[in-house]
Amino acid sequence: MENLKDVQSEKDIRKVALKKVGIKDLKWPVSVMDKIQGVQNTVATLELSVKLPSDMRGTHMSRFVEMANDMKSLNPKNIELLLIQLKERLQADVAHCKIKFDYFVKKPSPVTGIMSPSNVVCTFETELSDKYNFLMTVNVPVSTLCPCSKEISEFGAHNQRATVSIAIKMDKLIWIEDIVEVAEESASSPVYSLLKREDEKLVTEQAYSNPRFVEDVVREASLKLDKLKGIVWYSVHVESMESIHNHNAFAYTENEFKFEQ
Amino acid sequence: MENLKDVQSEKDIRKVALKKVGIKDLKWPVSVMDKIQGVQNTVATLELSVKLPSDMRGTHMSRFVEMANDMKSLNPKNIELLLIQLKERLQADVAHCKIKFDYFVKKPSPVTGIMSPSNVVCTFETELSDKYNFLMTVNVPVSTLCPCSKEISEFGAHNQRATVSIAIKMDKLIWIEDIVEVAEESASSPVYSLLKREDEKLVTEQAYSNPRFVEDVVREASLKLDKLKGIVWYSVHVESMESIHNHNAFAYTENEFKFEQ
Amino acid sequence: MENLKDVQSEKDIRKVALKKVGIKDLKWPVSVMDKIQGVQNTVATLELSVKLPSDMRGTHMSRFVEMANDMKSLNPKNIELLLIQLKERLQADVAHCKIKFDYFVKKPSPVTGIMSPSNVVCTFETELSDKYNFLMTVNVPVSTLCPCSKEISEFGAHNQRATVSIAIKMDKLIWIEDIVEVAEESASSPVYSLLKREDEKLVTEQAYSNPRFVEDVVREASLKLDKLKGIVWYSVHVESMESIHNHNAFAYTENEFKFEQ
Amino acid sequence: MENLKDVQSEKDIRKVALKKVGIKDLKWPVSVMDKIQGVQNTVATLELSVKLPSDMRGTHMSRFVEMANDMKSLNPKNIELLLIQLKERLQADVAHCKIKFDYFVKKPSPVTGIMSPSNVVCTFETELSDKYNFLMTVNVPVSTLCPCSKEISEFGAHNQRATVSIAIKMDKLIWIEDIVEVAEESASSPVYSLLKREDEKLVTEQAYSNPRFVEDVVREASLKLDKLKGIVWYSVHVESMESIHNHNAFAYTENEFKFEQ
Repeated sequence: MENLKDVQSEKDIRKVALKKVGIKDLKWPVSVMDKIQGVQNTVATLELSVKLPSDMRGTHMSRFVEMANDMKSLNPKNIELLLIQLKERLQADVAHCKIKFDYFVKKPSPVTGIMSPSNVVCTFETELSDKYNFLMTVNVPVSTLCPCSKEISEFGAHNQRATVSIAIKMDKLIWIEDIVEVAEESASSPVYSLLKREDEKLVTEQAYSNPRFVEDVVREASLKLDKLKGIVWYSVHVESMESIHNHNAFAYTENEFKFEQ
Repeated sequence: MENLKDVQSEKDIRKVALKKVGIKDLKWPVSVMDKIQGVQNTVATLELSVKLPSDMRGTHMSRFVEMANDMKSLNPKNIELLLIQLKERLQADVAHCKIKFDYFVKKPSPVTGIMSPSNVVCTFETELSDKYNFLMTVNVPVSTLCPCSKEISEFGAHNQRATVSIAIKMDKLIWIEDIVEVAEESASSPVYSLLKREDEKLVTEQAYSNPRFVEDVVREASLKLDKLKGIVWYSVHVESMESIHNHNAFAYTENEFKFEQ
Repeated sequence: MENLKDVQSEKDIRKVALKKVGIKDLKWPVSVMDKIQGVQNTVATLELSVKLPSDMRGTHMSRFVEMANDMKSLNPKNIELLLIQLKERLQADVAHCKIKFDYFVKKPSPVTGIMSPSNVVCTFETELSDKYNFLMTVNVPVSTLCPCSKEISEFGAHNQRATVSIAIKMDKLIWIEDIVEVAEESASSPVYSLLKREDEKLVTEQAYSNPRFVEDVVREASLKLDKLKGIVWYSVHVESMESIHNHNAFAYTENEFKFEQ
Repeated sequence: MENLKDVQSEKDIRKVALKKVGIKDLKWPVSVMDKIQGVQNTVATLELSVKLPSDMRGTHMSRFVEMANDMKSLNPKNIELLLIQLKERLQADVAHCKIKFDYFVKKPSPVTGIMSPSNVVCTFETELSDKYNFLMTVNVPVSTLCPCSKEISEFGAHNQRATVSIAIKMDKLIWIEDIVEVAEESASSPVYSLLKREDEKLVTEQAYSNPRFVEDVVREASLKLDKLKGIVWYSVHVESMESIHNHNAFAYTENEFKFEQ
């Protein structure tokens, strides 16, 4: 085989270190740990990168894909192993991996009890330098009903679909399902894939009895996360697709911030 | 200047005519006719194309951009002139132009009367062969409140933002503003950029008094469009971001279809 | 259990039949037939709908989700069975189902032969009235190198990623993999998830030796599809993310159209 | 007028302060300072928010839209005035404003000199607490040609459209146009809306003569930004839509980071 020059390995004299160099938007079939079934097959979008010292011209992008090829079922431990290999293979001090995927939680409809899958979008953002960071974000669709609208109106109250995005760092395993529960219990009502008439009645009345601003949902989730064992950091972002506007309302906090005030 | 070969003008022997050849996703500053102010500046995404006979290898893509450079204020007449020039410059039997843009309608809030701009996304899809076709689509955000949820629940009713997409062919000028009115009057309530408390009370109660399935909104819009002078064809698509689900509901009809049944 | 009124089943007197009523944007875990492995797990976005006669107020949206719950592995036969049930359950003359999903084809890199998955986005659009229509679209990423740029330049030639979208109706089973092959062979070069240096050299030189306008790619694909047994209708759309512009170039044909000229 | 209860102003006892509360995804017509023409009309997506103390239940969302209604031409000074008013009107310690918009730079094609608009997406992210922070991001489309592919191949080299995203904090006015220049000079070649054959020849040859990895583009931009007077902080992100892959390559640095190594 001919000897092809390794341009990436050239010496670089520009004295600019790069925080991240890698690949993005790689769609990939993956399997993820599932609290109930053990494992779940899904499709992920991958971003893999390393830190590049100032004296190296480039990284070897194909090695990221080789690593993806060897990837085991997605869990914090397996991703750490992937990052260890990435650091070795690319001689890097820091390696990162970001994985976004559709995850399905099986939920019964609230009255009739019919099971169906409910989609939550999840992201794992991880970094390995001297220490290992694992940040999990779970985006949970819910329903919010406006307390102001209910209070000032003779009947009815505007309500809408909203997304509760909870990001956590943990020191023991917390399941996606646990975070979904926090998000759903903090809103006016959960949403469901399948609702028969009896279920729709309950969901409608539950939301009306339980009005919540986006501010309220963030605070309720925050109180619940404070009590959840194993969480060392969290943030909560809630965004509602206001049904009386063509724009969204949102609220955000982080657990370190919220005690400052 | 050197003589550079015109590869596109080569003879093609594969005997495959192409229905459309052109450019897409060209962002462009444009001005659009406005019923109230006369003209409105906005940003459009352009698609320009021509039919290509089987014996021509390629079209000259740069000429589409030259045409865009010469484009006057967007209205049916000016777009026809553009297509006439496109046919000439590219020696084509058929030319097409598709223009998608954000348009703003100034609306007062319903009680306090404060004016603010409200965004509707519009599309002009046009074709010039022997005859000229001009299809205008207006996507109007509205609110829908579920008649079933209201009926079966002791209190409250789920509601949500929805989009009414009305496409029309006309034989006299119909304004974007006229279509916005049809869409808003067909829904449970319009949506607004700005609502003070008194406005929010009205909008909430109005929606509750006026429950509409997506099916109802399509039918109400259809009846109104039947009466609007100047329309020779229309379709109505309504999609609501259901607040009790993580998926959408939709309904669709066209005026030629709806009488078949 | 209390008796909840069925509002959807009310008589409608507005005399407007609806072409489609249903649900959209439902994310769902599915399995799809795979030419090599037998079956492949992935995530789909579903749209399910029926025709609604003018005298029925609404459809029963929850039944679409019940049907999705019962859905078997995706293939033309199983989707037909789903539509038969949908027509029955919703007493409809016409039922539709649109399924969009990520599919992965395992491909070896061209010189080193390392296997890795390559993502193609596919759509099944189906309709059952008196007869059954099944339209399959496969969107294949490829590389195109500009013949004009190569011809007029002393060295180099601009090239870019492009998407070949082939839609077909068939009277015998044609695999996604077969359509991927047509698309890749029609372009300047296939693209790959994983390329080592020897592979990159080959792909670069192959593209340079094989310049293709979007017009050429459509025509080459068209000629190959003409010869593929089992195809009764097809269309080809090619869109390239031009590397010298901030907009795209595209070309399109359908097999019925291309002989008109 | 009746007296409607102000639910948002209720006392909150949950002891959770919120970092941000506000509105998002509000489309709005705006005008922006333009280096050449003075001012440019365009369409923006707005996010407006404030910090919320732990003892206030909610913010008054409609006031954000009132502020947007009063908004003057977008420049650092006018946005600071908007944030001062926002803090006052909402009795907040911190106010934020994020504005994303399409901006058009007029550029001549490189040989024939034909002027046409070229789209760059810009974002202003601003915060006013005790001090005022203004972060400007400019996303510039360019072309990159792979040095490795050129080196190892007998002819040709893969190239593609890429986006250079430069974010800066400044202590004197720096124009969007200045950042566009930095980005374009750091890449293998600029991209253009309109190129005639002579222009295409130049652009093709220029890119081939000037191969750049994403790593190179970040470093070249970094060196140029180091020399640009008025910049107190910057970051550079480059992402290329690889023409030989179906995924992207990227590199990133910040000026504080790059000297650490």
